[in-house]
Amino acid sequence: MATTGVMRPGHIQLRVLDIGESVHFYKNVLGLVETGRDPQGRVYLKAWDERDHNSVVLREADSAGMDYIGFKVRDRATLEKLDADLRAYGVGTERIPAGELLETGERVRFSLPTGHVMELYADKTDVGNGQPYTNPDPWTPQAEQGIAPVRFDHCLLYGPDLEGNLKLLTEVLGFSLVERVLMEDGKSDLAIFVSCSHKAHDLAFVRHPEPGKLHHLSFLLQSWEQVLRAADLMSMNKVSIDIGPTRHGITRGTTIYAFDPSGNRFETFSGGYDFYPDHQPLTWTFEEVGTGIFYHDRKLNERFLSVVT
Amino acid sequence: MATTGVMRPGHIQLRVLDIGESVHFYKNVLGLVETGRDPQGRVYLKAWDERDHNSVVLREADSAGMDYIGFKVRDRATLEKLDADLRAYGVGTERIPAGELLETGERVRFSLPTGHVMELYADKTDVGNGQPYTNPDPWTPQAEQGIAPVRFDHCLLYGPDLEGNLKLLTEVLGFSLVERVLMEDGKSDLAIFVSCSHKAHDLAFVRHPEPGKLHHLSFLLQSWEQVLRAADLMSMNKVSIDIGPTRHGITRGTTIYAFDPSGNRFETFSGGYDFYPDHQPLTWTFEEVGTGIFYHDRKLNERFLSVVT
Amino acid sequence: MATTGVMRPGHIQLRVLDIGESVHFYKNVLGLVETGRDPQGRVYLKAWDERDHNSVVLREADSAGMDYIGFKVRDRATLEKLDADLRAYGVGTERIPAGELLETGERVRFSLPTGHVMELYADKTDVGNGQPYTNPDPWTPQAEQGIAPVRFDHCLLYGPDLEGNLKLLTEVLGFSLVERVLMEDGKSDLAIFVSCSHKAHDLAFVRHPEPGKLHHLSFLLQSWEQVLRAADLMSMNKVSIDIGPTRHGITRGTTIYAFDPSGNRFETFSGGYDFYPDHQPLTWTFEEVGTGIFYHDRKLNERFLSVVT
Amino acid sequence: MATTGVMRPGHIQLRVLDIGESVHFYKNVLGLVETGRDPQGRVYLKAWDERDHNSVVLREADSAGMDYIGFKVRDRATLEKLDADLRAYGVGTERIPAGELLETGERVRFSLPTGHVMELYADKTDVGNGQPYTNPDPWTPQAEQGIAPVRFDHCLLYGPDLEGNLKLLTEVLGFSLVERVLMEDGKSDLAIFVSCSHKAHDLAFVRHPEPGKLHHLSFLLQSWEQVLRAADLMSMNKVSIDIGPTRHGITRGTTIYAFDPSGNRFETFSGGYDFYPDHQPLTWTFEEVGTGIFYHDRKLNERFLSVVT
Repeated sequence: MATTGVMRPGHIQLRVLDIGESVHFYKNVLGLVETGRDPQGRVYLKAWDERDHNSVVLREADSAGMDYIGFKVRDRATLEKLDADLRAYGVGTERIPAGELLETGERVRFSLPTGHVMELYADKTDVGNGQPYTNPDPWTPQAEQGIAPVRFDHCLLYGPDLEGNLKLLTEVLGFSLVERVLMEDGKSDLAIFVSCSHKAHDLAFVRHPEPGKLHHLSFLLQSWEQVLRAADLMSMNKVSIDIGPTRHGITRGTTIYAFDPSGNRFETFSGGYDFYPDHQPLTWTFEEVGTGIFYHDRKLNERFLSVVT
Repeated sequence: MATTGVMRPGHIQLRVLDIGESVHFYKNVLGLVETGRDPQGRVYLKAWDERDHNSVVLREADSAGMDYIGFKVRDRATLEKLDADLRAYGVGTERIPAGELLETGERVRFSLPTGHVMELYADKTDVGNGQPYTNPDPWTPQAEQGIAPVRFDHCLLYGPDLEGNLKLLTEVLGFSLVERVLMEDGKSDLAIFVSCSHKAHDLAFVRHPEPGKLHHLSFLLQSWEQVLRAADLMSMNKVSIDIGPTRHGITRGTTIYAFDPSGNRFETFSGGYDFYPDHQPLTWTFEEVGTGIFYHDRKLNERFLSVVT
Repeated sequence: MATTGVMRPGHIQLRVLDIGESVHFYKNVLGLVETGRDPQGRVYLKAWDERDHNSVVLREADSAGMDYIGFKVRDRATLEKLDADLRAYGVGTERIPAGELLETGERVRFSLPTGHVMELYADKTDVGNGQPYTNPDPWTPQAEQGIAPVRFDHCLLYGPDLEGNLKLLTEVLGFSLVERVLMEDGKSDLAIFVSCSHKAHDLAFVRHPEPGKLHHLSFLLQSWEQVLRAADLMSMNKVSIDIGPTRHGITRGTTIYAFDPSGNRFETFSGGYDFYPDHQPLTWTFEEVGTGIFYHDRKLNERFLSVVT
Repeated sequence: MATTGVMRPGHIQLRVLDIGESVHFYKNVLGLVETGRDPQGRVYLKAWDERDHNSVVLREADSAGMDYIGFKVRDRATLEKLDADLRAYGVGTERIPAGELLETGERVRFSLPTGHVMELYADKTDVGNGQPYTNPDPWTPQAEQGIAPVRFDHCLLYGPDLEGNLKLLTEVLGFSLVERVLMEDGKSDLAIFVSCSHKAHDLAFVRHPEPGKLHHLSFLLQSWEQVLRAADLMSMNKVSIDIGPTRHGITRGTTIYAFDPSGNRFETFSGGYDFYPDHQPLTWTFEEVGTGIFYHDRKLNERFLSVVT
């Protein structure tokens, strides 16, 4: 099989400070589609072009941040195998029963060395993208409400043990290292970008003393013109923009970073190259990290390095 | 491993009527980079952003068309396994020694039920995309010569036994069915689009009485604006345009079809959605095939169905 | 004064076969804004970014076509002067009283040598573009309903006496010849493109035996990506597309031609160059008229030359 | 006549610190075309799509800045009339003989109340845009060298007496006020944007204690994608970027500000709306000036207000 194992980031559970304000933001400004609410009060959303029932789950809490990120695997046999592989590798796993998240099958939950909670699952109900499976249109006017990304794409996470993450993700879960940023020592990694697919990154990590932090979750747009439209909609809606529109040197994507009403940073981006696992990784030296992150400004802003949730 | 088995279309050997005229066209108009010539007189080219040594190999011959299409597999162990799997399935395979194509390892060659020659290989020399592996720019002005696609992307092939192809490609080689077009009977396939990756198609086939025919080989551009630029460059260079710029309903890509100097149809396209193997296939009914192929014209032109090489 | 005399095409009165169907089309598919209806049953519309009360006036009639096109002039003194100039030139003019068209001042009406009715007027109520005149946003989500052009831009009209039109428009009304297409004789004009502004055309004429015919009215979009979106929306709404997306050689615009429900051809286009009256005109020879009209197809289709209303 | 009087900014003479370095920058990075050098050592350049012989004239000097900006007027009679009008208004004018600038006719030079030197002229040799006047292509690959704007478009100038400029430009030279930014007092202007054409600005002024300063000269690109390409080329060439890519609220243009090797700020921008002189001006309150200038950041950076040459 050509695509096996871990397929893609399928859901993220986000902590938000005010569920009503957040739902308004994620639906009407970002343009996700609400697909359900559960008895715990969690609100389920998906990007219009995603077929599975949910990708962003909002949970009201006292502090912002990410509860966990879940990756969809190829099938249930893969789920069982990867659970066994994780345990064999020495990672403790926990089973979350099917249905704990709406329309989502059993999940295998574990912690990454950086302190982030990651999940694997094989089943989530296909609710379609609003178009029939026969003779579909490429999009519909309903797909243009708000910023309207096509999918939840990846996360950048901050935490201390990048070496542990890289080893676990590549040796057990089949990820590949795509790009890396070196520290001043020219050896250890300040940041790593890893892929379980043909995307230039499905996950990325930056070294940071505090574990388990979220730098940003990212949503895919279809063109640089859609990135401009997103920036315009952010200004119309008084969304706090961190930086952009600009381009990343790393992954080549064109991007905006901004903050949701709880202070969670999110990205709306477009483009970037396709990765294949026979590609040798790209390396960014410490001196060029600014250009790597923000190709036009060629320097980091302080917020990029310090503001996380 | 998340990406295993067959990875991508890696090379195509094309028959052209006049090697000099063709090299001029593929280099200066299409904007591929020449990477070598061999003692047989074959000319090797690659798209600027491809890292492997070659993707388009031109061979002078009395008739236009495709000699074979080669897919790169994950590694040599995969190559051996897939060769064994093919033989176990009943497909005769042939070994082409390393070096028969420049900078390319041993190939496993076989015929598809539609009469097309397909190859698998694990090794082709990484010559890079003209940028360093450390602190690369996203592109360089050298990447803007001619139409300058980022990669050879896929082929659409014409032949009789689509059922045989679909079975072989999905059961032995790990491809998935992404979209299909039904015939008048509402059951059998007029066309199938299959993927071994996250692309909406790595190969496609249309039912046709004569085996082994090439409808088009396709090159990826990075935006709809680049599609316009490609069309402009075609007109400046008096390239025969078949249709476009327009959009496909199938795969959603934006596209131009045109002909190389030998009459081989090629496509320069952009966009389309990402496929994952848990996606159920899309189906186009016979009545809507025009809209599926050319979303704006909503009808096929006669050339699309009859002109192949 | 730097901009004087005739400023721009300000309104067109179109004959449509079914007013209800047409209003639906112009509002919901093309995305104009309805601004009023009058006791005669005429329906008034404007593009979202136009500030004046109306630009497209629909009148139900037994045959499709254009009743007249009106140009806004700089002020009332200009209107009086141009009326006098027209009469001095030998053109009979008629005064249409203020208010005959909603929110529109007195009009000076006359016939062009090609048999088209043209009007001049100085006043039309500024109703704004939906944004305040203080601290406006560049656009609003309300501006994205339907194809949503920014303005009614120009017309291409068919009729016999191009020489008479060119003389009248340039000598009396201050237009400039921007581009011309020559006939087989290499001397007389098959088509002329004239401007009263910095646009590459405010009006264009093609030689045709029957006077007073409409080839198309045209609406301006803001990018080539919006041209694609327009084509997609046309297909979603089963609008009959004549040709496109493509580029014109003449004026360089990127374009789609399509038909309204009554068979009136309209264009949605983007781009093209800015004209200044010190520019010498561009000439297209008869042999290259196909490339001039459709830069990618490089030939005319029969519809372009024969279907008018 | 529909376009009369002052037509457009036609040339700017810039002071640069090192002529060799500057010529390299303006030719190879910005992508202007060199059209001549004169005995004084001045270097003449034009944007590829401009037809007149020169638009940017570089003069080596000890300090950066603008010597003067020249506007082309409709014809020689207009030049004489405007000279007389200026003198009648009380503005001293000086005649610069034809040929003092290469391929440029006699110029009428005077000072604006803000201390900037402005010129009017009627003649500059038409050297074409590299395409024939018969059957031209819309662009050619030669037009893609460097950032390659289509024209020198406008300047933003800093100086004290905005009221004087506005009165002179509108009452004598036929400009219109398009947009204005108010100061804290809600009455006087912090900035004014004026047009002699259909452009949203041909000139702009910001109130500043020191007279005669240049904030930026601006070059027009053809799309937002070209703005991204410009930013990428700036980074590849280590050009100091001030801000962008982003959008202006004022004029709606999409933009990058950057610095030439001498510290002269320049802009490469795309888009914006078309102005007509019957449009009432837009007003920006002091509180929203940040959004007006940089629509996404919604605040000014210190450099914007203080760094001028």
